[in-house]
Amino acid sequence: MQRTEKDLLGELRGRLAEISDLAGTAAILSWDQSTYMPAGGAPARGRQLALMSRLAHERRTDPELGRLIDVLKSYAEKLPADHDDAALIRVAARDFAKAIRVPTAFVERFSAHQSTAYDAWTRARPANDFASMRPLLERTLELSRQYAEFFAPYQHIMDPLIDDMDEGMTCASVRALLVELRAALSGLVRAITEKPAIDDRCLHGNFAEAPQIDFGLGIATAFGYDLARGRLDRTHHPFCTRFSGGDIRITTRVYPDDLTQALFSTLHEAGHGMYEQGVAAALDGTPLGSGTSAGVHESQSRLWENVVGRSLGLWGHFYPRLQAAFPDKFKNVPLETFHAAINKVEPSLIRTEADEVTYNLHIILRFDLELAMLEGRLAVKDLPEAWRARYQSDLGLSSPDDRDGCMQDVHWFGGSIGGAFHSYTIGNVLSAQFYAAALRAHPEIPAEIAEGRFSTLKGWLDQNLYRHGRKFEADELVRRATGEPMTIRPYMDYLTRKYGELYRLAPAALATRA
Amino acid sequence: MQRTEKDLLGELRGRLAEISDLAGTAAILSWDQSTYMPAGGAPARGRQLALMSRLAHERRTDPELGRLIDVLKSYAEKLPADHDDAALIRVAARDFAKAIRVPTAFVERFSAHQSTAYDAWTRARPANDFASMRPLLERTLELSRQYAEFFAPYQHIMDPLIDDMDEGMTCASVRALLVELRAALSGLVRAITEKPAIDDRCLHGNFAEAPQIDFGLGIATAFGYDLARGRLDRTHHPFCTRFSGGDIRITTRVYPDDLTQALFSTLHEAGHGMYEQGVAAALDGTPLGSGTSAGVHESQSRLWENVVGRSLGLWGHFYPRLQAAFPDKFKNVPLETFHAAINKVEPSLIRTEADEVTYNLHIILRFDLELAMLEGRLAVKDLPEAWRARYQSDLGLSSPDDRDGCMQDVHWFGGSIGGAFHSYTIGNVLSAQFYAAALRAHPEIPAEIAEGRFSTLKGWLDQNLYRHGRKFEADELVRRATGEPMTIRPYMDYLTRKYGELYRLAPAALATRA
Repeated sequence: MQRTEKDLLGELRGRLAEISDLAGTAAILSWDQSTYMPAGGAPARGRQLALMSRLAHERRTDPELGRLIDVLKSYAEKLPADHDDAALIRVAARDFAKAIRVPTAFVERFSAHQSTAYDAWTRARPANDFASMRPLLERTLELSRQYAEFFAPYQHIMDPLIDDMDEGMTCASVRALLVELRAALSGLVRAITEKPAIDDRCLHGNFAEAPQIDFGLGIATAFGYDLARGRLDRTHHPFCTRFSGGDIRITTRVYPDDLTQALFSTLHEAGHGMYEQGVAAALDGTPLGSGTSAGVHESQSRLWENVVGRSLGLWGHFYPRLQAAFPDKFKNVPLETFHAAINKVEPSLIRTEADEVTYNLHIILRFDLELAMLEGRLAVKDLPEAWRARYQSDLGLSSPDDRDGCMQDVHWFGGSIGGAFHSYTIGNVLSAQFYAAALRAHPEIPAEIAEGRFSTLKGWLDQNLYRHGRKFEADELVRRATGEPMTIRPYMDYLTRKYGELYRLAPAALATRA
Repeated sequence: MQRTEKDLLGELRGRLAEISDLAGTAAILSWDQSTYMPAGGAPARGRQLALMSRLAHERRTDPELGRLIDVLKSYAEKLPADHDDAALIRVAARDFAKAIRVPTAFVERFSAHQSTAYDAWTRARPANDFASMRPLLERTLELSRQYAEFFAPYQHIMDPLIDDMDEGMTCASVRALLVELRAALSGLVRAITEKPAIDDRCLHGNFAEAPQIDFGLGIATAFGYDLARGRLDRTHHPFCTRFSGGDIRITTRVYPDDLTQALFSTLHEAGHGMYEQGVAAALDGTPLGSGTSAGVHESQSRLWENVVGRSLGLWGHFYPRLQAAFPDKFKNVPLETFHAAINKVEPSLIRTEADEVTYNLHIILRFDLELAMLEGRLAVKDLPEAWRARYQSDLGLSSPDDRDGCMQDVHWFGGSIGGAFHSYTIGNVLSAQFYAAALRAHPEIPAEIAEGRFSTLKGWLDQNLYRHGRKFEADELVRRATGEPMTIRPYMDYLTRKYGELYRLAPAALATRA
């Protein structure tokens, strides 16, 4: 009996749902590992995660899946390009083609090395011991190169690594963006650092932990993060994870002496969470059922954390509630003082503590350094010195050690070298571009935010970004939502206006952005 | 190249470890479902659990596994019977032989029916609506019979169902035990109910939840429940679950108006937890790596909850701490009043709230009723009336409705009919038999308990029960640990002595136990 296209599509969906459920199961195992697992659970958890990963990889590279997709391509060609089925078959084909490039043995070897390197880093960093990490990092570099080779021919060895995070982007396109941005930022950073520093002492002190968490979660749910399909827990490093369309969880961390950690980590992860929760239910259980790229994902965390979450309008509404939650701390602190404090710009050594303006400088120098390593222009042994040189030249700071120097981020030490950092800056750039587009469509958004209402903004994002999942690649999504390709202009406008006001900068001081 | 026995055993262990890891993963998914999962996660969680179950079943019934076990049987025969490898091959063979008896399609059909019936029961019970459950329960009975038929020939249709819970036991042996126990208990229950009721008002009131949980967990960890390999969370129904040898979690529930719920649920589940934590590390990841039967498991929860946890000796040590934790409640309540209150005997309608003495009457009547249903002597439609008749004759109570009558327990409605309840009573009987054996070996145990020390008792249990996992069937384990087969004598001695003192019973009143 001839199987119809409907039968075949049903089989494809069944196979993809199983892969999705295995990935969701692995995500649950990881979440539990980070939140509640007792120490004794670690060895078996490692095995269970490896098993889920292997079972998923077997299914992702099953030749039967490839044959099924091939047969369905002719069906897809008869459909409009933006039809759900067409997108499903297109993305499934792309994922399959990528998955079969990498031999299973390599996946397992790389994964084992990543665990070893991560584990060593957790000890080496506190000990400021770069020497012990050097051979592991050299191996990471070698494996990252080998990984890229599976996708030869390529224009640049970083292209396959970038493509994994931000499909459709290349080393050339990322580099062009970062070069342009670095030039544009330099005048703004210089102008701000010439001004008197903002006093942010009101953010420090001793804040009870439970009200910190409750307060951040209160804003996150006001944004639209749905606790019927999510929850907030505490972890060492905040993250967002998807178990299924109905269960997308976020985590935060709490510092008793720094109000901003829990608050902005929660808003940041809620941005990721709302993106995932907003994916159309019809796409759940398929490869289309999550955010389209690391950069677009980061745009949503940064939009809600920074563009909305650090705006004066929002705090006009929420600051009295913060004062009520911590009356001893804020009763004598004016709103404007608090708002300035959460937006203080100050070159610093640590990326994760950087302000909005200097944050990208941290990213750009990391990108340049990993590019130099991948291209063979920089040896791993020379990384600490190169790092120090760039912090001196780009941020005017000398890092006293490697712990808070080139060993501060987990990315290179637990993962791969190349393509690890650029998504953060793409996220910053796109956060402003999307927000500007939402404002063009709905000029009433700032007034609503000032009243603690976010449904128009959230609705525009749901409609133009979230619901599409991976149906469109980042570039197409950006064009559809904003009417133009990715551009740094809205981002620089946003920074210039916001920090021009906060630091009372003369327009001439910002000349370099022209 | 000829594969050695070591190679083959290695392959067997690898296959069994994968089955164990799939089961552990399913346990994590279930635990999360009961503890932290938001409502929206339910549909995908059902699919993920079904997938883990199918993957495990495929591996448990893989003909290659059967061939491997067959080849290894000759190796096992050369080893002493209590060698770990011999036990492993023996138990793996038994599990495989049982697993292949039941067709996969039946497993899935039964499992789907169980979910449907459970879901219906959660609504029908509060509505006191037995009529809507009747067809579902009839189907459960039919499927339970079909399940038993896969193990034909058998002596009694309940034998295969009992064997799933308590390997080696049969309907005949369970019935003989329950008949003997019912007769022995009748005089004690009559004597107690003729005495004035104990005043247990001190246990009721308004108890803050966090200190309730902390207090119970404090005793559980003093017993020896290890938080480095476990944790305590809150659920609607308390349970214990094993993810691996290093991660065995328990849950409890808290009633603000009843101190005993959280306290004794925690001690009960800690008993299960200590059994699982005590299994030798070498058995982890194999079918030997957990408790040997439902009855022996229950003996450990009841031993720690009741024999130890409700003893005057223990409270001599812990009562001052309870008074300190809830000073308003207990400062004027003498130790003896508190101890009598937590041991109050009173025939009641609800099994889970029953005292130690009448608890078994609830079990015995349920066993008799499910036996009658399985044998076709009792129709499902007549169950409510038969239930009422037995509560009247056995406990002297008339149940006003089905909600707190035959619909009160989930077992028949969410699972299967036959073999669901007897393990609780086996647990009670064995709890006293094991404790008496420990006391013969270490007469100092009661004095240690009175000082809040439990390591001698825990050590004896580790050595004689826990570490063996499933290496020995219950009957052999009981004989090895206590020197005789299961017997109700130590249990009746325990009840008679304890409640004789508490209720000041004249020896003559207990004559029926002779």
